[in-house]
Amino acid sequence: MAESTPFVVIAEFRVKPERLDAFLEVAADDAAHSVADEPGCWRFDVVVPDGGATVIFYEIYHDRAAFDAHLLTPHLQRFREAFPPLIEAELPVRFGLLQNPASG
Amino acid sequence: MAESTPFVVIAEFRVKPERLDAFLEVAADDAAHSVADEPGCWRFDVVVPDGGATVIFYEIYHDRAAFDAHLLTPHLQRFREAFPPLIEAELPVRFGLLQNPASG
Repeated sequence: MAESTPFVVIAEFRVKPERLDAFLEVAADDAAHSVADEPGCWRFDVVVPDGGATVIFYEIYHDRAAFDAHLLTPHLQRFREAFPPLIEAELPVRFGLLQNPASG
Repeated sequence: MAESTPFVVIAEFRVKPERLDAFLEVAADDAAHSVADEPGCWRFDVVVPDGGATVIFYEIYHDRAAFDAHLLTPHLQRFREAFPPLIEAELPVRFGLLQNPASG
């Protein structure tokens, strides 16, 4: 089987400033379980950029199928149920391919 | 010393489609040397999102000082000299803090 190219998912949320802590809590649950419970999830970083209540998820999966499996998980379901009232907007999710898998 | 929060750098380039390969080559050099030669550089991912000639760098450093040291390196200098004719635009670099360092 050809070596797969790791599948990257970048999500971004504009979070209500007063709900940032609550959002980070449900995000941390999703991130921790994704990496711990999903063999195909290599990385799930939760990043707060400078200057405000924005949160970026940087996720890496073995391939697209591993991400599709992620979409069926209970921890993602928990996150999906929890986050809507905590945010002002969710930016379009970006998908991509990791060009240098051995880089970190 | 307080445990530092890993410092994240996200850069994005709109690359001339016909120069994407050349751009990825100089990006790979910078990425590989950053991780190999800089103790403070934990990760330097080169990602090509779906749909076109855009390249995202997702970089993690031990802290801000480690990133400042990165700015003085010969491999970044090589990249800075090589990439301008290969791109259409560079988006503003985003800095942030990694909230869950143990996630990957």
